[in-house]
Amino acid sequence: MKAISYTPIGIIRSPFNAVEGMPIQSKGAEGIRGTVELNPELVAGLQDLDGFSHIILLYSFHLSNGYSLVVKPFLDDRHRGVFSTRAPKRPNSIGISIVKLVGISGNILHIEDVDIVDGTPLLDIKPFVPEFDMRRADKIGWFADKSRDVKDTRADERFK
Amino acid sequence: MKAISYTPIGIIRSPFNAVEGMPIQSKGAEGIRGTVELNPELVAGLQDLDGFSHIILLYSFHLSNGYSLVVKPFLDDRHRGVFSTRAPKRPNSIGISIVKLVGISGNILHIEDVDIVDGTPLLDIKPFVPEFDMRRADKIGWFADKSRDVKDTRADERFK
Repeated sequence: MKAISYTPIGIIRSPFNAVEGMPIQSKGAEGIRGTVELNPELVAGLQDLDGFSHIILLYSFHLSNGYSLVVKPFLDDRHRGVFSTRAPKRPNSIGISIVKLVGISGNILHIEDVDIVDGTPLLDIKPFVPEFDMRRADKIGWFADKSRDVKDTRADERFK
Repeated sequence: MKAISYTPIGIIRSPFNAVEGMPIQSKGAEGIRGTVELNPELVAGLQDLDGFSHIILLYSFHLSNGYSLVVKPFLDDRHRGVFSTRAPKRPNSIGISIVKLVGISGNILHIEDVDIVDGTPLLDIKPFVPEFDMRRADKIGWFADKSRDVKDTRADERFK
């Protein structure tokens, strides 16, 4: 299939200079502040965004090289199919984080609950709308007895 | 910033041959069935995915050309900054849908609640994990009195 090319719309800034020791989900990054530096020519697209408490960031896991179809996730000690995990080392290494939007000044978004490494290329910003984005999921596979460990688990270099 | 290139990992099949008349979110597509045809060489990555009731699909809005920084969303009669909307015509036109996973046979995923046009290039599959993906959002901006209209609103050609 034909490749699709995306130009980053900005860059994500955070206190994390390396993947090692980082929170593995925004739920494990409560209170951690960062910013989005949107390319200034796109600032008109931010209109009305300040009305939202939470936004969805799509970004490139730019520190991952190549991919594995089977990975050992941070939260597990068994290997799992990569599409049943949130591991960065995936065929198209696109990450999603839902972060708090604290405020906007010009092309700078102040955000909180940031689980993203400093310098990450941003692909998209979407408003988080519970009516669209929440589901009553009755099965969460291998996460069943593990998703609650997310607050205490930190990343290491395994997906570099 | 340097462009990033992604090769689709498969294709999404649905009953929708055109954007016009389609549901605008999976919440408006209850019961509508479709499939994901994953590239067969990636099938090992599906291991353990059948344990999940819901999955997140990332895909290319391949029928959108170019973008607008200000758009009139399907749910509103006013113009809004594109990043405060879920409109397809965005700088990097990547879509997200959370769909029900009904079953997997080989490289074919049977899915439900499909709000995606037939032939859409798939970029990624992630498991939906409420612990990671749900937020108590206290502000939903211009959607406040409109998000519930999502079940009755259908798409038209405005974002082509």
